[in-house]
Amino acid sequence: MIVQLKASVRKEQVSQLISWFRGMGVDVHVSEGSLQTILGLIGDTSRLDIDMIKALDIVENVQRIQEPYKNANRKFHPDDTVIEVGNAKIGGGNFLCIAGPCSVETEEQICDVANAVAKAGAGMLRGGAFKPRTSPYSFQGLGAEGIRLLVEAKKASGLPIVTEIMDLSQLKYFDEVDVIQVGARNMQNFELLKEMGHVDKPILLKRGLSSTLEELLMSAEYIMAGGNERVILCERGIRTFETYTRNTLDVSAIPVLKSRTHLPVILDPSHGTGIAKFVKPMSLAAAAAGADGLIIEVHNDPAHALCDGPQSLTPEAFLDLKKDVDRIVSVVHGGAEA
Amino acid sequence: MIVQLKASVRKEQVSQLISWFRGMGVDVHVSEGSLQTILGLIGDTSRLDIDMIKALDIVENVQRIQEPYKNANRKFHPDDTVIEVGNAKIGGGNFLCIAGPCSVETEEQICDVANAVAKAGAGMLRGGAFKPRTSPYSFQGLGAEGIRLLVEAKKASGLPIVTEIMDLSQLKYFDEVDVIQVGARNMQNFELLKEMGHVDKPILLKRGLSSTLEELLMSAEYIMAGGNERVILCERGIRTFETYTRNTLDVSAIPVLKSRTHLPVILDPSHGTGIAKFVKPMSLAAAAAGADGLIIEVHNDPAHALCDGPQSLTPEAFLDLKKDVDRIVSVVHGGAEA
Amino acid sequence: MIVQLKASVRKEQVSQLISWFRGMGVDVHVSEGSLQTILGLIGDTSRLDIDMIKALDIVENVQRIQEPYKNANRKFHPDDTVIEVGNAKIGGGNFLCIAGPCSVETEEQICDVANAVAKAGAGMLRGGAFKPRTSPYSFQGLGAEGIRLLVEAKKASGLPIVTEIMDLSQLKYFDEVDVIQVGARNMQNFELLKEMGHVDKPILLKRGLSSTLEELLMSAEYIMAGGNERVILCERGIRTFETYTRNTLDVSAIPVLKSRTHLPVILDPSHGTGIAKFVKPMSLAAAAAGADGLIIEVHNDPAHALCDGPQSLTPEAFLDLKKDVDRIVSVVHGGAEA
Amino acid sequence: MIVQLKASVRKEQVSQLISWFRGMGVDVHVSEGSLQTILGLIGDTSRLDIDMIKALDIVENVQRIQEPYKNANRKFHPDDTVIEVGNAKIGGGNFLCIAGPCSVETEEQICDVANAVAKAGAGMLRGGAFKPRTSPYSFQGLGAEGIRLLVEAKKASGLPIVTEIMDLSQLKYFDEVDVIQVGARNMQNFELLKEMGHVDKPILLKRGLSSTLEELLMSAEYIMAGGNERVILCERGIRTFETYTRNTLDVSAIPVLKSRTHLPVILDPSHGTGIAKFVKPMSLAAAAAGADGLIIEVHNDPAHALCDGPQSLTPEAFLDLKKDVDRIVSVVHGGAEA
Repeated sequence: MIVQLKASVRKEQVSQLISWFRGMGVDVHVSEGSLQTILGLIGDTSRLDIDMIKALDIVENVQRIQEPYKNANRKFHPDDTVIEVGNAKIGGGNFLCIAGPCSVETEEQICDVANAVAKAGAGMLRGGAFKPRTSPYSFQGLGAEGIRLLVEAKKASGLPIVTEIMDLSQLKYFDEVDVIQVGARNMQNFELLKEMGHVDKPILLKRGLSSTLEELLMSAEYIMAGGNERVILCERGIRTFETYTRNTLDVSAIPVLKSRTHLPVILDPSHGTGIAKFVKPMSLAAAAAGADGLIIEVHNDPAHALCDGPQSLTPEAFLDLKKDVDRIVSVVHGGAEA
Repeated sequence: MIVQLKASVRKEQVSQLISWFRGMGVDVHVSEGSLQTILGLIGDTSRLDIDMIKALDIVENVQRIQEPYKNANRKFHPDDTVIEVGNAKIGGGNFLCIAGPCSVETEEQICDVANAVAKAGAGMLRGGAFKPRTSPYSFQGLGAEGIRLLVEAKKASGLPIVTEIMDLSQLKYFDEVDVIQVGARNMQNFELLKEMGHVDKPILLKRGLSSTLEELLMSAEYIMAGGNERVILCERGIRTFETYTRNTLDVSAIPVLKSRTHLPVILDPSHGTGIAKFVKPMSLAAAAAGADGLIIEVHNDPAHALCDGPQSLTPEAFLDLKKDVDRIVSVVHGGAEA
Repeated sequence: MIVQLKASVRKEQVSQLISWFRGMGVDVHVSEGSLQTILGLIGDTSRLDIDMIKALDIVENVQRIQEPYKNANRKFHPDDTVIEVGNAKIGGGNFLCIAGPCSVETEEQICDVANAVAKAGAGMLRGGAFKPRTSPYSFQGLGAEGIRLLVEAKKASGLPIVTEIMDLSQLKYFDEVDVIQVGARNMQNFELLKEMGHVDKPILLKRGLSSTLEELLMSAEYIMAGGNERVILCERGIRTFETYTRNTLDVSAIPVLKSRTHLPVILDPSHGTGIAKFVKPMSLAAAAAGADGLIIEVHNDPAHALCDGPQSLTPEAFLDLKKDVDRIVSVVHGGAEA
Repeated sequence: MIVQLKASVRKEQVSQLISWFRGMGVDVHVSEGSLQTILGLIGDTSRLDIDMIKALDIVENVQRIQEPYKNANRKFHPDDTVIEVGNAKIGGGNFLCIAGPCSVETEEQICDVANAVAKAGAGMLRGGAFKPRTSPYSFQGLGAEGIRLLVEAKKASGLPIVTEIMDLSQLKYFDEVDVIQVGARNMQNFELLKEMGHVDKPILLKRGLSSTLEELLMSAEYIMAGGNERVILCERGIRTFETYTRNTLDVSAIPVLKSRTHLPVILDPSHGTGIAKFVKPMSLAAAAAGADGLIIEVHNDPAHALCDGPQSLTPEAFLDLKKDVDRIVSVVHGGAEA
């Protein structure tokens, strides 16, 4: 860490600050220049609060010279992490499509969708059991029963399953769930993240609605610091001033994240746009930008088509999307021109 | 709820939509105009997902005609809620200053600050025991031991205490805590909010860093729907593009919230700006805008002054602030000109 | 326009409001329902200020039933607009790459880049002559002399040229410029937009850093209302909370804009990310999302490579990008699998 | 300027970079540490593009050690600037209320409002003649005729007048205008700012909707660099995610700006909130936070009261506001308790 002091700083203030840093267990190299005094902090600076130091009266600025995330950092782990779940693989050139309905409703519904998306080439099944809802009066999902139905769909289709956890008290229902999703609103629920570090399953971690990419990586770091290195990062739309779409899907997060971390990065075009007709172009864009996968809402219940419609695709539309995504993936991954 | 359909909609689509609404248990009044067809939904529309309906192909727009929050709504509860905690009162013209250190460190530290701020006119003591930190490698607070020390300070100073809960598993340590704080990052931790609805203590609910005021009110509604009507709302700075301050303290949230809800509204100028010299002007602004109170960081340990400095005041600075805040409060609450 | 009145409204208030609307030249249909009174405004509502009406005490909400842009609206002009500039075409399936240096520096520099990008498949040359700079102390571009050099490069390479205008007083230098660029900071410089409506050249209109897509379309409408229908829309990165990139390139703007307007939509990955290594993945993403073109910074001066580097590509890198973009375009435009 | 190089940088890259800096006319001090190489740039660094340097492959980070604004900087001009306009003064303890209608409509209207606000204690008259409108189809103001009517109102009331310029071509109409306003959408219209630097009148410069405070100061710097030191800064609401108000009035901008610059800082609570009932609390908050003045919309035409209503006050409401603002100002400026 590099600490630049203000030009106006007095000698005893510098000494006092250095003593304090040493008291925190870090070594300090002092460089007194004609322009200003600069302190180089060496050792384990991770316990220092950079914002706090920055705001000191005598400090001009502070800069880390290392990213604050270690386990998630591509510098220390140059090769892509490949995560295997059943027969599914993601990362390192393996592109994974996760598909399924917004909410689990009935056994018939979830099994039908599971079979349909398996046939269309999806590698994993998604479905909401515990649903985070802005209003306490809204339907909160089938809960544990929803997970039981997902497990039935897993047996029927052979697809591994992913579903969201909202609180540690629900963990007991996740025994047969293959991948645990931590939702956007819980991205900085640090107690939940810590516990995910002790779970022997991959975690699908969604980016918060107005989180920076560094904050997302720090949340992955919470999980990895606990020992669980299998984290899948998911961009699902950020909050902007735009009103034509529910959120703004940040495709640029894909190459930026992939330059910083070895973890797989996927995109959720269904929640990100909230509108079915934009799911395909944004899926193609994600593949073109180098994503490792997609998580897409698919329904197959014609009776509810009207109301599932907004952001869900039919299995037929998903199949069409999957085909073009595959062609884009082959361009990006250097497939020879046919 | 008012649903406006597109001009191009076909008759059978309208019928299908109406049937679906009726199946959801709401009554539908149809108004076919020369301009467009408008559906008025009557009854319990709280289970309808407005975003989902809005995104339907045949729907032009949807509007609620009632706010989605009921218990928190000033329309149904015109008088200010007054919350009493020990000798402290907040709301309905009672202005409350909550003060104390960022983190509880030692018994001596917290008791000294408690006595100092009590003498300066604070009505409640704050202090962090469980600390939400972006990095897993940062100090996470003293935890249960921190709460024990806060309780000692409460005995020493006579001030009721408020501290933050981060997960339901910590609730067992909060027996002697007077007010439970739910932090900005947990504002939409819905399982935590639900449980706060069953606790017999006031809840201090902080606004999320990029939450709208309606989202804040909906989170209060989660608590109130569970039966706990004693919720204090706290604006603590929102995320903007500004870089000179850590966050942007949204003073305008005060009159807007107070026009919408009967709950007390306070402001946190210490976290909101991150810089001690802005704490006083922003405290005065909050009082002038009609806030019901403030929550302010105060340290009293000269040895650590350097490092607590950034956003904390000394007890002397807090006393000075308190005096001018009182004068502003008397202007706002119509005190006769002396 | 639909105006919903509050439940509490009194009869004479409704009459007063209706009179006022009629005074503004619009006809009013009144629908008094059990839920609330709704006014349907018919005729030329374009002079009504929707925000002003919305904020009236007696008004619950207001909605337009037509988009406020007409000339730019795909509803009234379903076919893609194709714009021709010299031999270059954009829109309606014609994908155009515009390339060139950030600033025009010398005749040799701009002619060399022009020839290099022409050879690599660019269809138009870009280069800054008048440069908008945040600081009055920064280099402001070569101005009129820069345009003269661009015209030389046009002669040398055969490529049409596009460069930015910052004020109406500069228009006299643009006679031989093929396409006039209006920059992000001038997107709502309404006097400039009005004048662009009377110019007989295509206008490349960049989206403001925190503008909504509707605001962009309204600015295009300013130009088109003056009679100039040849407007190219350009997404160039929006301001978000992210710090790893200069701006956040909003790829999702492409399909959303193309669903709303018939105008060509292009993307600027160089300014949008500010980092050369992200230019290619974001260019591929743009093509995959359905963009009609790209505008990319390319330098070719090895002596300055160090400093042009950040967001500029070498001609070789541009050629490589162009090849893969072409393959993506052929997937998106339904080219049969080879 | 401090440039930190990456640990991996090669010697010849460092030499190349240093040569380039020297070629730009700045001196370079090299400090090779065990941690990393740091370059200190001395001299006129204002022509260096910090973003460009930051993005170089070999650069870890860059920091200015001086703010990029000089004339506007309080460091070099510690005393508050006081601006006099006719009998009105602003800054250095002089609090100025500017009041008047949104748009100039008729001579009677503007003269009546002028007399009413003069009587209520306003020190300057505002009124829009050239109106920036998002839609080309909206009323664009009376233009030059509006300015003529303002001048009549100035004669009638004795109040100096302020009105907005939108383009340099309008400057010829501003001879008798006392203060020229540059609106939020033109805050980075750099050609307009340059010309304002050569005008012998104070400039009221409004902050852009999503501009940082540094950007606002840099725009003031554009004007001051041209020789016009009389700039009044105005916060008028920033764009956030909030939907209950049109914009979010950033009260915290006041103390932050006043710590950075000697220029007067005022607040526009009418546009900032868009809702009349929030104008008073936000005006009091601005005064409490240390503002030097306010600019407030006041109408006085009972026939149009309904429609001017949203964000405009009646003269009576303005008088009531003015009284309480005065009491707050006396608290802030240390008036002894009566």
